[in-house]
Amino acid sequence: MPELRQNLATREWVIISSERAKRPEEFVQPSKERVEDRPVYDPGCPFCPGNEEHELEQLRLPTQGDWQVRVVRNKYPALREDGDLVRHVDGLNHSISGIGYHEVIVETPIHNTCPALESEQTIEQTLRAFQLRGLALREDSRVEQLVFFKNHGRTAGASLMHPHTQLLALPVVPYDIRTRVESARRYFLDWGECLNERIRKDEEQQGVRMIYQTDYFSAFIPFAAFSPFHLWIAPHRRVASFLDALPEELRELSIILRQVIRKLYFGLNDPDYNYVIRSAPESERDAEYLQWYVSIVPRVSRMAGFELGSGMFINSALPEESAAFLRSVNVPDDEA
Amino acid sequence: MPELRQNLATREWVIISSERAKRPEEFVQPSKERVEDRPVYDPGCPFCPGNEEHELEQLRLPTQGDWQVRVVRNKYPALREDGDLVRHVDGLNHSISGIGYHEVIVETPIHNTCPALESEQTIEQTLRAFQLRGLALREDSRVEQLVFFKNHGRTAGASLMHPHTQLLALPVVPYDIRTRVESARRYFLDWGECLNERIRKDEEQQGVRMIYQTDYFSAFIPFAAFSPFHLWIAPHRRVASFLDALPEELRELSIILRQVIRKLYFGLNDPDYNYVIRSAPESERDAEYLQWYVSIVPRVSRMAGFELGSGMFINSALPEESAAFLRSVNVPDDEA
Repeated sequence: MPELRQNLATREWVIISSERAKRPEEFVQPSKERVEDRPVYDPGCPFCPGNEEHELEQLRLPTQGDWQVRVVRNKYPALREDGDLVRHVDGLNHSISGIGYHEVIVETPIHNTCPALESEQTIEQTLRAFQLRGLALREDSRVEQLVFFKNHGRTAGASLMHPHTQLLALPVVPYDIRTRVESARRYFLDWGECLNERIRKDEEQQGVRMIYQTDYFSAFIPFAAFSPFHLWIAPHRRVASFLDALPEELRELSIILRQVIRKLYFGLNDPDYNYVIRSAPESERDAEYLQWYVSIVPRVSRMAGFELGSGMFINSALPEESAAFLRSVNVPDDEA
Repeated sequence: MPELRQNLATREWVIISSERAKRPEEFVQPSKERVEDRPVYDPGCPFCPGNEEHELEQLRLPTQGDWQVRVVRNKYPALREDGDLVRHVDGLNHSISGIGYHEVIVETPIHNTCPALESEQTIEQTLRAFQLRGLALREDSRVEQLVFFKNHGRTAGASLMHPHTQLLALPVVPYDIRTRVESARRYFLDWGECLNERIRKDEEQQGVRMIYQTDYFSAFIPFAAFSPFHLWIAPHRRVASFLDALPEELRELSIILRQVIRKLYFGLNDPDYNYVIRSAPESERDAEYLQWYVSIVPRVSRMAGFELGSGMFINSALPEESAAFLRSVNVPDDEA
């Protein structure tokens, strides 16, 4: 029997479609060029060593002599750093000047790798770069919301294959995020606890959708996952902003994020995916009703007309089955 | 200078990204197999003539002897027709049994065609089938929301190439639609007029984003279009539910819908696209603050991590330029 499950953060329903459900193995991706089969260095790649002059800004985290992670301004930024934040209202046409920041974190000098094949140290430094840049950008009072994300693979929106993540600093809080914040605030007012914390604790207790657990983090497929293998990595310590995660938490997040991404890589044959770090709006960065977390969305299904027309999603994988599958995936021993 | 524009229906912002903007010609799709080069009849296609026995239900609109349009239950329905609508609440796990309808409208017996190549009569009969089936399904008191949509091409979610559209009848109003309804209701309370009607009239007056106009409909790219060439076809007569569109309106909608789809087909080389008919929830089907319309979304850009993490979209095409481009596209003379 199909079931509609409600995402309490967005209040939206998801159709968990048992009649058209696929077994987890049916989501294994077809063979394609392996990341490792690409050249380790591509002279035409703007993110490879030797092309640092293309940078507009740089952050170095020198641990082994040369740079390991560097940050550059996006060459084609979605937003512009200079100018005044001006609001125009002309009848129904409401607009704001597109002020903000759009930066790229180049995760490693190595061209032919990806997070599933990177070391924990590389992932940890990427997370540190996110934090350092976020802390710098929040100093600009025009910044209302930081969005941290990764696009892995073409169908996930990546145009350059050299491993990189991105950071956008927005001059507004997106309405979607406002809705989530408001749900969390109301939940706190009604129940006296943080909604995300309650979701995580419930998932830990129920166990059927858990994938992996460490001292500081839990990885699970949420009850109302909107797409196959959509999963959360949620911290145990409640803090609203990712920028307030502690160094030891970042270290452990790099371990569990890598482990989960490797389970996807080896279990589903390197699916394209996005991950985003959901962090509080700047104006509510200390709110006790909010908790940051990482959301990972493998791109193994497509958004179609129904999703566009309703805002709802049809998930053709049962979250419990997907979680059992990911738990059972053995990743090769860690040679990194 | 990039600009954030607000969609007043959803209150969400869209980044209109002039720095990374592409010229309209850059969205022309690469060459691919032409629809017409496929066989006119495919014995393995469940929608081709001769396979009618696979139907669970049928609607015939006989105009030339054999069927022109037929309606079948989706073989792998997202929702199930039988059973009671039961709500389960177990802590944070909120669910409703997946009751509803999922039907397919086979637009024509011809396998190798698509709306851009179909006759106006075929499109009109598809729209009539939508209406007839919607009127039948709304008799079921469990139905709260009808969603009418088309997926054209693989990246738009189509798995079968034989031209077809789909209809889902939901037992809940999606939260996204509730948000839109609430925005429209508040606008009506504040301003005494229908938001969608005001949007259409403003677009007609400004003209720069208009594409096509007939006696009963206007086609335009909205000010805050969330993706390149995202466009609306809005009726001039205000009525909340598509099911209340008049026969002469359906006839004219088939003309303008076909014309706009042909402009996309010839101007952008047959892009994949979705169209959805946005119609009022059943409980508000007579609301004076609502107006149905058709939303068309060519799939010429990709949703990536930023969109997932923020709910906002980055549109790399200027709506005004896209509209001028589509206005200038000459479609071949109508031989259909």
